[in-house]
Amino acid sequence: MKNGSYYLNNMEKGISGAVVRRMPRYYRYLGELLEAGVERISSSDLSGLMHVTASQIRQDLNNFGGFGQQGYGYNVSFLHEEIGRILGLINEHRVIVVGVGNLGHAIANYISGDDQSFKVVGLFDADPGKSGQSLAGLAIQNIDEMKDFVRDNKVDIAVLSLPKEAAISVANELIELGVRAFWNFAHIDLEVPEGVVVENVHLSESLMHLSYRMTEAE
Amino acid sequence: MKNGSYYLNNMEKGISGAVVRRMPRYYRYLGELLEAGVERISSSDLSGLMHVTASQIRQDLNNFGGFGQQGYGYNVSFLHEEIGRILGLINEHRVIVVGVGNLGHAIANYISGDDQSFKVVGLFDADPGKSGQSLAGLAIQNIDEMKDFVRDNKVDIAVLSLPKEAAISVANELIELGVRAFWNFAHIDLEVPEGVVVENVHLSESLMHLSYRMTEAE
Repeated sequence: MKNGSYYLNNMEKGISGAVVRRMPRYYRYLGELLEAGVERISSSDLSGLMHVTASQIRQDLNNFGGFGQQGYGYNVSFLHEEIGRILGLINEHRVIVVGVGNLGHAIANYISGDDQSFKVVGLFDADPGKSGQSLAGLAIQNIDEMKDFVRDNKVDIAVLSLPKEAAISVANELIELGVRAFWNFAHIDLEVPEGVVVENVHLSESLMHLSYRMTEAE
Repeated sequence: MKNGSYYLNNMEKGISGAVVRRMPRYYRYLGELLEAGVERISSSDLSGLMHVTASQIRQDLNNFGGFGQQGYGYNVSFLHEEIGRILGLINEHRVIVVGVGNLGHAIANYISGDDQSFKVVGLFDADPGKSGQSLAGLAIQNIDEMKDFVRDNKVDIAVLSLPKEAAISVANELIELGVRAFWNFAHIDLEVPEGVVVENVHLSESLMHLSYRMTEAE
């Protein structure tokens, strides 16, 4: 079931977090190859492009059943699609953005502009001055309207781009209303019940990590 | 050299990336304890707060020489300061932000508002309409002025918050001018010479990872 296998036989077996973390990067590179009109690519060419060893690439992709045929390389379009499927990108994700400062603004534009599988359906902010302003084809609503909106509409993901003081109570409200996924930009760690997933983007920690590596590189 | 040791005896020995990655989170929690007036904390209390095992905490901190005294817990202020030192936060980092769209705007405000060890010293954008606009106490400059600015001023970190098409050439220019650290928000992997560090914040990959975990949690 290695080379030449096109079945996701390992999906249920628990793929290591490190492999999963690398999948979006494969997806990005394959998307660029696809745009450039490349139909097939060998693991060694992909290796040169991504600066990952060819053996790492083969191992990573074998976790998901392989996708490659010895001597023929990978079918770019097929692999791109399959990785997209693994990453859940074939589902449409309906997203609300809570907190429409500059960061929330950037995120809403990014989601609307970049992808088909994520769709911004609601924008909320506590500042009444922002209500009615248009962004990503939607009118910003006051945060008081959030609960009703989530009750009446399917919401898959909530982006938390609001100050940490408010983020916890907003997240708890949304969990109660059935939201099961959070993309969290607030500088807090949310405590959530089982079945709820949180992906953090902690800018402060990223910046500190850069600072650490600068001291190492000196 | 474990408990009671206050020397950074392991700094040169190569600490694992995973441990280093956890340090900013310790720093954040210790900062909050400090603000709340907590002077000492046991590893088990810190464990409860951070949802990490006490043994993990002891192991992590022992990598840097310990900082704890058996039975007395950790001195919060001391530990906060030492981790800050390890992370290089005692240095002032002079930062330029290249690309002042919503994301660059958010980043500039975040850096200026949140921290003493990072200081925005220059803002550059290719859009002439933005030149002269004020942000974070500075006037945005046209990107044509970037080279001269970097030649004439000490710049430690460049934030790349501009479209990927432009990010590579801007990064190469800055490397040539001696900039040694990049906080990269563009959806590309920069190829840089040795001694130059790049910390990526790839929002697309974070969002895909969230999507993957949603399929797992279903």
